[in-house]
Amino acid sequence: MTQGERPIDRVVAALRADPVDLADDLARVRARFEQLGERDPLATGAESYRARIGGVSVLDIPVSPSEAPVVFVHSGGFIAGSAAGSFALARRLADTVGRRVVSVDYRLAPEFPFPAARDDVIAVLDTLGRGIAPERIAVVGASAGAAIALHALRELRDQGRGLPGAVSLLSPFTDLTLSGSSFAWNHVRDPSLTRSGLAAGARAYGASDSEGLRPTMTNLRGFPPLQVQVGSREILLSDSLDLVREAARADIPVSLEIWAEMVHVFPTFAAVLDEGATALRRIGTFLERWIPA
Amino acid sequence: MTQGERPIDRVVAALRADPVDLADDLARVRARFEQLGERDPLATGAESYRARIGGVSVLDIPVSPSEAPVVFVHSGGFIAGSAAGSFALARRLADTVGRRVVSVDYRLAPEFPFPAARDDVIAVLDTLGRGIAPERIAVVGASAGAAIALHALRELRDQGRGLPGAVSLLSPFTDLTLSGSSFAWNHVRDPSLTRSGLAAGARAYGASDSEGLRPTMTNLRGFPPLQVQVGSREILLSDSLDLVREAARADIPVSLEIWAEMVHVFPTFAAVLDEGATALRRIGTFLERWIPA
Repeated sequence: MTQGERPIDRVVAALRADPVDLADDLARVRARFEQLGERDPLATGAESYRARIGGVSVLDIPVSPSEAPVVFVHSGGFIAGSAAGSFALARRLADTVGRRVVSVDYRLAPEFPFPAARDDVIAVLDTLGRGIAPERIAVVGASAGAAIALHALRELRDQGRGLPGAVSLLSPFTDLTLSGSSFAWNHVRDPSLTRSGLAAGARAYGASDSEGLRPTMTNLRGFPPLQVQVGSREILLSDSLDLVREAARADIPVSLEIWAEMVHVFPTFAAVLDEGATALRRIGTFLERWIPA
Repeated sequence: MTQGERPIDRVVAALRADPVDLADDLARVRARFEQLGERDPLATGAESYRARIGGVSVLDIPVSPSEAPVVFVHSGGFIAGSAAGSFALARRLADTVGRRVVSVDYRLAPEFPFPAARDDVIAVLDTLGRGIAPERIAVVGASAGAAIALHALRELRDQGRGLPGAVSLLSPFTDLTLSGSSFAWNHVRDPSLTRSGLAAGARAYGASDSEGLRPTMTNLRGFPPLQVQVGSREILLSDSLDLVREAARADIPVSLEIWAEMVHVFPTFAAVLDEGATALRRIGTFLERWIPA
């Protein structure tokens, strides 16, 4: 097998052939995100329920027994993506970790800037936390969903309310000022994202205006154990490095996995990419360590 | 149980009560390193053999079956430490990962500056690699031993020779210019190390003179998968962060574990510290993933 025939090379080629640019026309970006998981055979036919939890629309993916649910916060640069569009990933996550996954259809920017998405995640956590100890709940966030998840945790912490027991982040987009050094040294290697696209998403969410948005990665004291998975070729790689540094300063247990040659939120491609399936299994191991099922 | 009664608090109190300063009188520093593992009940009585491999003195700790050995490179700031002084840790490592551990008594600075220690590790790897495929060998390095291990790998890589199949580093001391940011923000919290002590060790090893010593952390292309374990309160924490960033740039698979509130090479205290024993088990998991026994 030559290099060009590896699954990751096929994924990269497909991404390069038809890139999604968050700075494009909004309707087009959103349509693209809805198609993201479509090639995954799991995208159709698997069991899930549309529901409202805490007044927020969710896709509820049951797994029995399921006493320790996972709240999933999808990707999409704050302006796109949905529980339906990311269903295959959430479904694989549920099957792999053996836990119920509640995928949040949080409100999108620019129609609903910060803190709308954060508050939707809080509402879901709040409501789930009435039937189960909050520390039995895990949060998994992808890309911009990681920032939303961290914002939700900060607000819960600041209000002195119960926090989830573990957080796993996939390719977190957490430095909304785009100051990470990997923009400089990974931009040629990253087939998924552009600086201008991320800037557009952050701007729509309100990054330049809102004081509450700035400290996405700092002030993590009291947060639960944190797992971060990221691809070595991402322009967002240094977001992960900066985040785990701040978690360490707050004495949070951290597990950072840098996956060689992998791309942004590579478990999205788990249907064709062994690394994606393995990464999801490692989320299961991490959750089992901190929230035994 | 109050905070003050936790095992880690007792370890920290003991370290603060009787600190080891690498900048002290050399004979005193070396005597202290020989006592490091003495309180561990494993330090006496457990099986090991003094041997020479590739002309280098080693402690050979057999575990059967043992087809995939681990070469252990001990700590001591380049100027102190020995296979005997770190025997309890090496023995625990062998028992926990279920592999033969060969602990290298590399030559110490200042009597033997760079590249003596590196060449001793290379000689051991070379000789072991005649009886077994090099990629079946793992390397585990602690503190300054991590730098020595990385230097050995770089030299083997540059010579086009076979590399070990996996590397696990405990609290690596790899930035011999001491430029890491965690010196600034962890120096009050770190009970084990001082900047002046590390500077003394690096100077003795030849960090200021030798061109070959500079790129400890850069230019890692072709290196095997890398696991790094570090405590959140170490002044050397940013060495780990900078190292994994460079590993990512070289597309090396990386697993970084930051252990909350833990101290420098905390598995040294595994006899009293559950976290130390757990960390050694995670080394076993990592080695099993990349070098199935």
